[in-house]
Amino acid sequence: MLLPDIPSIADPALTTRLQALLDNKTKPLGSLGRLEQLALRIGLILGSEAPVLHTPQMLVCAADHGLAARGVSAYPSDVTWQMVHNFVTGGAAVSVLARQHGLGLTVVDCGVRHDFAPYPGLVVRKIAPGTQDASRGPAMTAAQCEKAIANGREVVCLLPGNALLPGEMGIGNTSAAAMLLARLTDADVADCAGPGTGLDAQGMARKVAVLREALAANADARSPLEALAALGGFEIATLVGAVLQAAHERRVIVVDGFITSAAVLVAARLAPAVLERCVFAHRSHEPGHARMLAALGADPLLDLNLRLGEGSGAALAWPLLVSACAILREMASFETAGVSSSL
Amino acid sequence: MLLPDIPSIADPALTTRLQALLDNKTKPLGSLGRLEQLALRIGLILGSEAPVLHTPQMLVCAADHGLAARGVSAYPSDVTWQMVHNFVTGGAAVSVLARQHGLGLTVVDCGVRHDFAPYPGLVVRKIAPGTQDASRGPAMTAAQCEKAIANGREVVCLLPGNALLPGEMGIGNTSAAAMLLARLTDADVADCAGPGTGLDAQGMARKVAVLREALAANADARSPLEALAALGGFEIATLVGAVLQAAHERRVIVVDGFITSAAVLVAARLAPAVLERCVFAHRSHEPGHARMLAALGADPLLDLNLRLGEGSGAALAWPLLVSACAILREMASFETAGVSSSL
Repeated sequence: MLLPDIPSIADPALTTRLQALLDNKTKPLGSLGRLEQLALRIGLILGSEAPVLHTPQMLVCAADHGLAARGVSAYPSDVTWQMVHNFVTGGAAVSVLARQHGLGLTVVDCGVRHDFAPYPGLVVRKIAPGTQDASRGPAMTAAQCEKAIANGREVVCLLPGNALLPGEMGIGNTSAAAMLLARLTDADVADCAGPGTGLDAQGMARKVAVLREALAANADARSPLEALAALGGFEIATLVGAVLQAAHERRVIVVDGFITSAAVLVAARLAPAVLERCVFAHRSHEPGHARMLAALGADPLLDLNLRLGEGSGAALAWPLLVSACAILREMASFETAGVSSSL
Repeated sequence: MLLPDIPSIADPALTTRLQALLDNKTKPLGSLGRLEQLALRIGLILGSEAPVLHTPQMLVCAADHGLAARGVSAYPSDVTWQMVHNFVTGGAAVSVLARQHGLGLTVVDCGVRHDFAPYPGLVVRKIAPGTQDASRGPAMTAAQCEKAIANGREVVCLLPGNALLPGEMGIGNTSAAAMLLARLTDADVADCAGPGTGLDAQGMARKVAVLREALAANADARSPLEALAALGGFEIATLVGAVLQAAHERRVIVVDGFITSAAVLVAARLAPAVLERCVFAHRSHEPGHARMLAALGADPLLDLNLRLGEGSGAALAWPLLVSACAILREMASFETAGVSSSL
């Protein structure tokens, strides 16, 4: 499969200029903490000392999981399509937050077990009505996985703006994310799985047992792409493509929670410089996310015990990115404001 | 001194209704984490199941400190008036963030050592050109302290809206805040003081020695009001009045960092139900803030290593409050959206 070109965007000269700009703003050195690091990162991604984020796009990818039939979620699979409907009719958390912040919202049916009527904002790129049960073999074929990645790239190509906020929906997809994390970081899946949308202790034990089965059934899927096909989901594979394309185009990628991070993990194994384009929005309440973030070397902005997905955490963090750019562009320097620097 | 009436706003019936609304939104139970608790709190403060924040107001109080002459800050006192000028001319961090979020910005000269020309957005309620040196006796008289509190109350009375975001500026005011924390919580001031805007280790040692002197020189100032007068600053006393008035009017009070929290600490000692109206925006990098937050029983929203003050952290957290209200007002319920609840 041909991957888009994603070179490093490291730029020592621009970094130095951005740091000097930040250091000369009318505030004690470094006193805006993480916001200054964020400004530096966005400046580097957009290649500008005066970065402007424009026409930001949420991209919510949805699909069903064969593994859900094994009882790995607290919700029935029908919730996937019902929530897709909720996204596009404006009643979901991500719909509300996208409206608040003026974020475009595109929902992609990557493989939901439902036939949707046409709806503005809903893009159908369905691979199949749900993946196969990964406890019996690969969730998808290599060809399906490649097609989903291509779909993600294509959808991002069609979106305007210079920032992408990926999100997802898919009953069972914390299982897929946990297995990808376990396989790609050689961790015990029991340390990667969590209650998802709300399993109790008994449900958790069943989930871990099923995930061990699925990992054993796909023991030979070791490379990032093989693991994605065997253990992932259509929405995760589509997100991998979306993230790769966004990185190629030097869009700012705002990474939401556990499942979106799993897509970023796969993308980063395919093209490590993807991570230079990422801003990690939040640390999820889902226990495996801390391990995932460590694997990605990420230190996210928010820690609000979120565990919803949909891209909701990315949307909540969005104003901080806008603030970081505004600080860089609009704050006065000590010189222009006539403020004395330190004694 | 007559304090405004600030009764408890605890309302078990409304709490139950708000919790039921949140639990029926189309998301796994509790999956929006801290945002749900925030929605509950704002609903209680505004006494509404569909809270709307309107015309939010930043109120930045500025004053100089006699103690600054003892070298407790990395910056000269002149920076106080220079930054006030920067606030009202739009170049400071708080100016930029207020613009971004559509927050009103009022700057109050509570006792800056400078005569300002009239300027839109600048309110002069100057008690004196800086406090006395607290290492030689009380920073202000009881009458000055009462007047500053009355000023804060009056200024808030004149402001529109149902949310107040207090901020401050005053070279030397981390010293005042550290002393108030030490005195009101019976802590060692060495555990309350920090580098402020950027002292090195030697500067820190000098600062702590000076604060010990000032606490000893005001050993008899034990009550919240006595401590405020002896150890505080005009901007802090004005903020105490502002917070009391805002609490009386049931405005949502968004608490910024170390110095603003010190004003809230004093206000809460005068009227504990003040805290029911507060949303704590962030955990400051200033080491004493963690102790301050513990004393206030507060668990703030953000942790971004900020140590700027001005109200900048409150402004950065503001969109989360708007999100919390939007979730409550605009998200669909399982029933209205036709989404299945858990298995």
